[in-house]
Amino acid sequence: MMKPLNIAIAGLGTVGAGTADILLTQKALLEKRAGRALALVAVSARDKAKHRGVDLTGVDFVEDATTLASRDEVDVVVELIGGSEGVAKTLVETALKNSKSVVTANKALIAHHGIALATLAEARGAVLAFEAAVAGGIPIIKALRDGLAANQFTRIAGILNGTCNYILTQMLRQNVSFEAALKDAQALGYAEADPTFDVDGIDTAHKLAILASLAFGTAPAIDKVVASGIRRITQKDMVFAEKLGYRIKLLGMAAMSNDGITQRVSPCLVPVNSPLANVHDVYNAIAVEGDRVGKVFFEGRGAGAGPTASSVVADIMDIARGVAYKPFTLPVSALGHAKHASTDALEAPYYLRLSVIDKPGVLADITHLFKTHRISVRSFFQDARNPDAAVDVVLTTHAIQESAMNKALAALSALHSVLETPIVLNIEDV
Amino acid sequence: MMKPLNIAIAGLGTVGAGTADILLTQKALLEKRAGRALALVAVSARDKAKHRGVDLTGVDFVEDATTLASRDEVDVVVELIGGSEGVAKTLVETALKNSKSVVTANKALIAHHGIALATLAEARGAVLAFEAAVAGGIPIIKALRDGLAANQFTRIAGILNGTCNYILTQMLRQNVSFEAALKDAQALGYAEADPTFDVDGIDTAHKLAILASLAFGTAPAIDKVVASGIRRITQKDMVFAEKLGYRIKLLGMAAMSNDGITQRVSPCLVPVNSPLANVHDVYNAIAVEGDRVGKVFFEGRGAGAGPTASSVVADIMDIARGVAYKPFTLPVSALGHAKHASTDALEAPYYLRLSVIDKPGVLADITHLFKTHRISVRSFFQDARNPDAAVDVVLTTHAIQESAMNKALAALSALHSVLETPIVLNIEDV
Repeated sequence: MMKPLNIAIAGLGTVGAGTADILLTQKALLEKRAGRALALVAVSARDKAKHRGVDLTGVDFVEDATTLASRDEVDVVVELIGGSEGVAKTLVETALKNSKSVVTANKALIAHHGIALATLAEARGAVLAFEAAVAGGIPIIKALRDGLAANQFTRIAGILNGTCNYILTQMLRQNVSFEAALKDAQALGYAEADPTFDVDGIDTAHKLAILASLAFGTAPAIDKVVASGIRRITQKDMVFAEKLGYRIKLLGMAAMSNDGITQRVSPCLVPVNSPLANVHDVYNAIAVEGDRVGKVFFEGRGAGAGPTASSVVADIMDIARGVAYKPFTLPVSALGHAKHASTDALEAPYYLRLSVIDKPGVLADITHLFKTHRISVRSFFQDARNPDAAVDVVLTTHAIQESAMNKALAALSALHSVLETPIVLNIEDV
Repeated sequence: MMKPLNIAIAGLGTVGAGTADILLTQKALLEKRAGRALALVAVSARDKAKHRGVDLTGVDFVEDATTLASRDEVDVVVELIGGSEGVAKTLVETALKNSKSVVTANKALIAHHGIALATLAEARGAVLAFEAAVAGGIPIIKALRDGLAANQFTRIAGILNGTCNYILTQMLRQNVSFEAALKDAQALGYAEADPTFDVDGIDTAHKLAILASLAFGTAPAIDKVVASGIRRITQKDMVFAEKLGYRIKLLGMAAMSNDGITQRVSPCLVPVNSPLANVHDVYNAIAVEGDRVGKVFFEGRGAGAGPTASSVVADIMDIARGVAYKPFTLPVSALGHAKHASTDALEAPYYLRLSVIDKPGVLADITHLFKTHRISVRSFFQDARNPDAAVDVVLTTHAIQESAMNKALAALSALHSVLETPIVLNIEDV
């Protein structure tokens, strides 16, 4: 019989409390599956008295999380504090230096410091695992590492931020504005008071950089992710997209081509009958394309106590069972120095919504401009009549390079009859 | 540096040739990921001369598959012959007896003899892995074992047979009969000349028994699966279901309740906007419900050279990396002696199509009968008028126990005005 695996949890927020709850209430089942005892020996949080819905009687409580990394009896430190710097980083570094394994849900930390931490983990023979950092309860990191290990990956496209997906779902279903949907998400605890990380695509960028790293065998390159968010999407866009047979989703997409890896986070139009279009509310989903398996699609809850803690505990189970992968599957020394390509050369059809003055000749100006830029228009419609005042014009194009579209956009914005910066979204057939 | 992992493949059909192709053409990538050399050392097939689209120069060819199990240099035997008895069984038994690990895509073998083979594997310290036996390229076995290991599973529902899903998709989209769609599937190589295993739900039953075993920690119980197929489904049913907001899919469903485990294979109505309803053609999909993670959904190709071989090679990669799970995750001695419950007590709403004589009073007879059996009708429509001749009547009910529905059915069939055995399908909210 192996000795028990002793676990300490740093951070008792939603996921921390959820993880403690699984370890304590699901103990018998976990131990049966692991073939080994699992013991939650210590936790840390700022406020001991706070009610968390989990009975921590008998579990040592400390205020200073970093002390968990130095306790002799601790085998695994679970970091659920968050943030790419500060206590979380110090805790993880110290734990790894002390040859303790680390499980974390911290995407910012891994996206920014993953390689340094993986190097440390390898040197000390410790595990560093972060299934919970991407897509909550969906075991996508393990799928890329194990279940799909026979494949060369060509593309990954995912809905990786539950907050944005909730907001977009509400905008479509309830016909409310971005601002109203955001407020609703905040009231429900799905969005932070400062929603920047979520709605501007930064959180998705962190997760995408991690997925791209695992899929393409290279270091996470968060600085190479081209990211935009959903603030400028309006209800009108949601409705126009549906009319055209599409739905707007914030996608993280990474692709490998001969030119190199591209990573982009942007709101995109996806066909209404595609699996990604039918991922609603706070659910996350990932479509993976492998050269042998074809498309594989994963969907599940992207956040919350249960789902994220499910992934945290899955990593703990790996450690308990002695399944010790390198953090990025390959040893750090074997990670390729990938070429990262500009997104300029990426080709896609586009959706554009232009606010223009409704007067004769405007359409001719616009179509002439597209002709000059050799952009082929696939469909066109004007939403309503509003003579001599603002009206929406919606265009879709055939596939065209991003660089060409950007040139056309600059010219479009210079037209007197175009009133605002156009809304321009990729149409992705995923 | 570890010594190379030496692999032998028995059976060079579609999947066998696909597996050889991955091992040979993806060799560098696989070895980088495994941290170890992989060598395909031998293959067996009936006809050496047959063209298989893969260059096997330098790979030893034998006619008698069972000899592969006794070759000293072979570490892993990949069994892709198929069938629950005969050569496949002998080969796997012999390999395990000789302490060689076995990877197989053989669902019939595992469903019928999995426990005996797992016992043998454990005794000889060999791995027995069968990711490819269920749902082709979808890594569902690893997900249940690893990624979702923190969960108590409550239900699994899957589209596990690509042939049936292709036939049902064709019936709906092309408005063709079951027979025509089957012929089409046979012409494309999706269905066997004798389609019994697929269309009568037997193949789905094998896969379901394996999934239920892994999810509920018990031995596969193929004899406890209640299975029916899709032969009696008509185009009319497809159309009526859509009208009601549902789609007909052949589902394998296993659930755990206080009464025990139920396992059922049957064509069911699922809501048109549910993920399972939108799984088309030869794709497979599985919806898993865990107590912590909630619903997780997996979709991918269920058959074919690439996808199934992707899963075969994923198992080989596990072995190369030294990840040595027990075949059913738990040791055989720890597998529970599960209680299997009758499906009699399962509650679901129902869809019924009755062929009746179109004359006054028939509806009254039917509704009276339902009233007598305390079955609450949710909706009712008669397809057309056809006075004094056969006409279809479609009913849906509120949720009711299967045993009650069966009693009502017996009474219904006894009515003079009911012309054929009614079509009765569960409506499943998955």
